[in-house]
Amino acid sequence: MNILLKILTIIVLLTALSEPLTAQQEAVKHRTPGEIVAQSTAQDWRTPAPENTLYVQLPGGTVVLELAPQLAPLHVDNTRKLVRDGVFDNTSFYRVIDGFVAQGGPQGDAPPQVKTGQVTIAAEFTRDTAQHPVDFVPLDAADGYADSVGFVDGFAAARTRDGAQTWAVHCYGALGMGRANESDSGGTELYVVIGHAQRYLDRNTTVFGRVLDGMDVLQKLDRSSALSGAQTVGSSNRIVRIRVGSDLPPEERRPLQVMKTNSDAFRALMMARKNRRGEWFVHAHNHIDVCAVPVPVRLAADTNTQAASE
Amino acid sequence: MNILLKILTIIVLLTALSEPLTAQQEAVKHRTPGEIVAQSTAQDWRTPAPENTLYVQLPGGTVVLELAPQLAPLHVDNTRKLVRDGVFDNTSFYRVIDGFVAQGGPQGDAPPQVKTGQVTIAAEFTRDTAQHPVDFVPLDAADGYADSVGFVDGFAAARTRDGAQTWAVHCYGALGMGRANESDSGGTELYVVIGHAQRYLDRNTTVFGRVLDGMDVLQKLDRSSALSGAQTVGSSNRIVRIRVGSDLPPEERRPLQVMKTNSDAFRALMMARKNRRGEWFVHAHNHIDVCAVPVPVRLAADTNTQAASE
Repeated sequence: MNILLKILTIIVLLTALSEPLTAQQEAVKHRTPGEIVAQSTAQDWRTPAPENTLYVQLPGGTVVLELAPQLAPLHVDNTRKLVRDGVFDNTSFYRVIDGFVAQGGPQGDAPPQVKTGQVTIAAEFTRDTAQHPVDFVPLDAADGYADSVGFVDGFAAARTRDGAQTWAVHCYGALGMGRANESDSGGTELYVVIGHAQRYLDRNTTVFGRVLDGMDVLQKLDRSSALSGAQTVGSSNRIVRIRVGSDLPPEERRPLQVMKTNSDAFRALMMARKNRRGEWFVHAHNHIDVCAVPVPVRLAADTNTQAASE
Repeated sequence: MNILLKILTIIVLLTALSEPLTAQQEAVKHRTPGEIVAQSTAQDWRTPAPENTLYVQLPGGTVVLELAPQLAPLHVDNTRKLVRDGVFDNTSFYRVIDGFVAQGGPQGDAPPQVKTGQVTIAAEFTRDTAQHPVDFVPLDAADGYADSVGFVDGFAAARTRDGAQTWAVHCYGALGMGRANESDSGGTELYVVIGHAQRYLDRNTTVFGRVLDGMDVLQKLDRSSALSGAQTVGSSNRIVRIRVGSDLPPEERRPLQVMKTNSDAFRALMMARKNRRGEWFVHAHNHIDVCAVPVPVRLAADTNTQAASE
């Protein structure tokens, strides 16, 4: 286009920008997280593939996990096999430390009896996303632990500046794999973050999923506050069984939906959380940490949306 | 001192710095948080003043809080009065949202009957520490929410670059005061952070204490995961009574000690958490967020130190 047209365009744009916002525009701009979720449309949500969900049955209720094969395919595949081998049935959450993690699975001197899975699996501390691209939606906020943070298909994640390596991070509810000193020694030690985000563990263990539903069940487990992480095995900490969602009869699956993290609704949510406004707030930080943006979960056709606390 | 002496001193210092560390020095340098706590001495610990502690008795156990008069004197003074007025006895945690907060106190249309305290109190979102200096021990790590973060007498805190304003921040276990839209409308709505740190609330509410013991009791409360923060009042969420520690017979007080945040042990702990090393760790971040440095709590003459999870 010619220079005159360019100048005209700029003038029009500047005029538009300098116009005061109408009340309606203001309202749209300052929607609360709750309003954004309430105003979202069906296209903003997805239903996790049943084969990527695990149902962890405890005496106190069921915890539903979503696995992240796009970030840790070996761990997802192996855990699914171990679940089908029954390795986690009749085990326990044997290490539950308040504000830290709940860790569970088989214990004892004899290695668990596996049929199709492996007791230990190669570490996946990061994923080679130069070779295996993922849909990384950046959070526009600085992070102390990584070059860049954001979300991959519902999982809080981080990546190197060049995007060549990506990894899921230790937010509240993250599912990780415990291990011994050797990097490739994990395989059966499932853990979930039950307190403040444990970001220092990023890239030291493999995070390969997160809790979609049932954090309240984990929070009721017997626990230790001891520095040593003294092992607490109470009857309430028993793992009755774990099942892959796709192995359950459809009527036993929970109709959970997760907000798409590449949706307009979620982008609006990130912005709203970065600068909370409205009558109540007096200080907007122009910042949010990645673990303070819970990815909303809801029951299909329900407005009782979870994991998006005020 | 003369120039030659200065040069000599510098040479000696440089020589000392360039010496390789002995194995023993390496071991000292790379102590784990657990080792630092285990090797701490009596001088690294303090006993909270009983008048700055609250004992919150629930059906499931007792939560012990420490108040922070150096950061929010009006809230501490007023809450103590309201506790003595019995305002919190036979009330409940009426708003418990998983991963967010547990909020409790009196509810209903009629204002609570107070004798010495006030139902609402002036906001103390920050403290004027130019006028009222505090012992701020900085954490050497960047923060997205504040110019500087660190610790004041055991409380995670932040401050402005000039140090003129300081405030306690919303880490796991922080005690804050809920309020209505007006800044000065809080007074009876006690809340505790029970999940990931809610730093976006910093400077929007008054944080005036933290849980020293009993987070496990709060984690067992009935809760909601609903976006609306639907109020959950179960019989298990009843607050039987709250008492000021100094009003209890000495034998009913818990002999809790808190690591001094201006001690050498705590400075070593901050450094160790910023760069975790040892056989297990493969990635050191050279970073830690202020809420990922729990201030250790222990029972006097006990090695069962709490709040310093691995």
